[in-house]
Amino acid sequence: MEFSFAASVSHMPSFSVRSIDNRQRRESWISLAEELPAEELFPLAQLGEAAGAVFSAGPLVLQYGEAAGSLALRKWLNTRWQIDQKLNVDPEDILLTSGSQQTIDLLVRIYVDREDTVLVESPASPGCLQVLRLQGANVLHVDCDEEGMIPEDLERLIVAYGPKLLCASPSFANPTGRVWSLERRKAILELCKRYELLIAEDDSYGDLRYGLESVRSFRRRYPSLFQLDREQGGNHVLYIGSFSKTIAPALRVGWAAGDQRLIEVMSAAKQTADWQSSSMNQAILLRLLQSPRFNWDNHITMLNREYEIRIKLMLELLKRPNWQGTQVDVPSGGMFLWAVLPDQLDGEELLTHAMSKGVSFLPGARCYASDEGNSAIRLNFTHPGRDELLLGMNLISECIAELRS
Amino acid sequence: MEFSFAASVSHMPSFSVRSIDNRQRRESWISLAEELPAEELFPLAQLGEAAGAVFSAGPLVLQYGEAAGSLALRKWLNTRWQIDQKLNVDPEDILLTSGSQQTIDLLVRIYVDREDTVLVESPASPGCLQVLRLQGANVLHVDCDEEGMIPEDLERLIVAYGPKLLCASPSFANPTGRVWSLERRKAILELCKRYELLIAEDDSYGDLRYGLESVRSFRRRYPSLFQLDREQGGNHVLYIGSFSKTIAPALRVGWAAGDQRLIEVMSAAKQTADWQSSSMNQAILLRLLQSPRFNWDNHITMLNREYEIRIKLMLELLKRPNWQGTQVDVPSGGMFLWAVLPDQLDGEELLTHAMSKGVSFLPGARCYASDEGNSAIRLNFTHPGRDELLLGMNLISECIAELRS
Repeated sequence: MEFSFAASVSHMPSFSVRSIDNRQRRESWISLAEELPAEELFPLAQLGEAAGAVFSAGPLVLQYGEAAGSLALRKWLNTRWQIDQKLNVDPEDILLTSGSQQTIDLLVRIYVDREDTVLVESPASPGCLQVLRLQGANVLHVDCDEEGMIPEDLERLIVAYGPKLLCASPSFANPTGRVWSLERRKAILELCKRYELLIAEDDSYGDLRYGLESVRSFRRRYPSLFQLDREQGGNHVLYIGSFSKTIAPALRVGWAAGDQRLIEVMSAAKQTADWQSSSMNQAILLRLLQSPRFNWDNHITMLNREYEIRIKLMLELLKRPNWQGTQVDVPSGGMFLWAVLPDQLDGEELLTHAMSKGVSFLPGARCYASDEGNSAIRLNFTHPGRDELLLGMNLISECIAELRS
Repeated sequence: MEFSFAASVSHMPSFSVRSIDNRQRRESWISLAEELPAEELFPLAQLGEAAGAVFSAGPLVLQYGEAAGSLALRKWLNTRWQIDQKLNVDPEDILLTSGSQQTIDLLVRIYVDREDTVLVESPASPGCLQVLRLQGANVLHVDCDEEGMIPEDLERLIVAYGPKLLCASPSFANPTGRVWSLERRKAILELCKRYELLIAEDDSYGDLRYGLESVRSFRRRYPSLFQLDREQGGNHVLYIGSFSKTIAPALRVGWAAGDQRLIEVMSAAKQTADWQSSSMNQAILLRLLQSPRFNWDNHITMLNREYEIRIKLMLELLKRPNWQGTQVDVPSGGMFLWAVLPDQLDGEELLTHAMSKGVSFLPGARCYASDEGNSAIRLNFTHPGRDELLLGMNLISECIAELRS
């Protein structure tokens, strides 16, 4: 039979991101395209021990669990917030999900109707754009600069389009790695409150902060929109967090935190989508986090130290002659470097060329719902080891030189 | 702020099923309401060993994996099909998901538009109804009898409404436990082929077959619609399977199998929904399935022997005087017993009463999108142990007696 798919399927991307992934995996290419942490930094042995302890504790952990996810793990998150940000978030205001991608998907499903306008950063996370396309939303980009989202442009779009939702990632956004200034954070929140616009704040990368300053000190200087809003008693922000970048993706544990009514409806949508995330995985993660042999702060410090070495290496490599004219935002955290190519080189064309040499990255156009970003590329520096980074960047630079000549 | 949810949220159930669950969990009630296997029958020790082996094999298993899920596990499924049903299903035709609930959700998201008509059995699985409501589908029930779905009624509805999808569960359906006869299977498939109607066949309960006949022999006598269709070279059936009922729910491993184009689009939707299911969990499951110490057939036989004892006990208890006049389908498999109460007692009213005594079940009305099933109830016999079953059934029967007097 001929299949007649739902209307939204025509808005879905052409699976090209996926096909990059699959080809890479099959042919063991160097990938600077993916959104992967470094597997050699996972706390593997400690997770193995945690798993052993969990399996010894009896079969209940293999059963369906609470719909909102492990209460103990939600309490751990609350404690963490209290320590890091002096913020109290009731476990009832938290829903455990299978990662930040699922969290944004659940929110969009319950909050956005087809044709509703949703505002995103410029550029925006490809995963978020994918969700908005499948839901049939009208996606508009708000102008951003190195300080973050520009309030004047946000207000213009709010007034003109009456949007339903703003998706933002003020700390080390995917793909730019930018950090919004405190003033911008306050100004954007203020605008959203004035116009009753819900904010989805993706903070999945917020712990990946490089440099001498501790994550805790950084978070106090640059509080999340969620924190700023809560401190004023607001309910305008749905916070999205994840353990995929800090511990390991295969745990599939992320969370949403926000107004109880919002969490309740998302929780019903979660039940509809897949009943619940794995109670086994949540138990293993919790056991790790509570182990006296595991220290969260030390683990994050170790991760950030290694990622800082990799991004510095990437920035050094970008100084080589072939890259001349490339404009780079130097990020102080996150997993990506956003580079605008010289001579208006086309990112997709460069990718085709690069893949023939066995290396890949994400063309910038995939971070836009509009026809922009064609001469930008997103480079991941966390997953490739140093040797791969060196080789991959050299191969890309050769392609640039060839395309320019 | 006031939240303005998407239109579909108003069609979502009133969270009452969830609230039963949560109250039960909190207050340690006896639940005959849930869709849970018996945790004491999980292969806990063997899964623990499998987990240990997986964690020793290096960190890659904690990384993001293939979008379609573990190729080795998809190959295992293919081998199983070849053994059980002499059917060859290419691993490319399989997508691993986080369970059957997610599988039906993904299919509906890519195939059903708001207002599209979808046909379901009468009564139908509450989880499937939930998905269809959130998507805004127009849900119609096809008449069924003890032989399965009635072809004449299906054709009438196809002609009158031009439906987009038929959801069916021909072997041990939730909630009735019914098995469709071979004739009905052939007739329904034939109709769907003639009218180009896609079938979603949920076979999550298909291995839970009670009685002397082996599962393999049963499956040969009652082939799935998927098998019947494939043998004729068709692509009209999307098959839905799960390890939640046979191994353990917290693994969160289920699958879809069908036409490659359908699987490809579902796979893109899966990526949008949560990137992918846990490669760690898939690796643990695969390690168990391949372990020389674990035998799939013996495990299923053990499960079915114990569940048969429980359903026989439940059927015995239903003979007690308080239940007089209750009409029961005696199922030969699955996890549920569907009972129509005497004197048109109301299932919801009985539940309120029963919950005050500390026991619960699912009111039949929740298995209908229409105003039906009010005097039916669904009883789960797999999760409660024998003592709980005895006590729970007695408490419900007391409530019936009180309501009747």
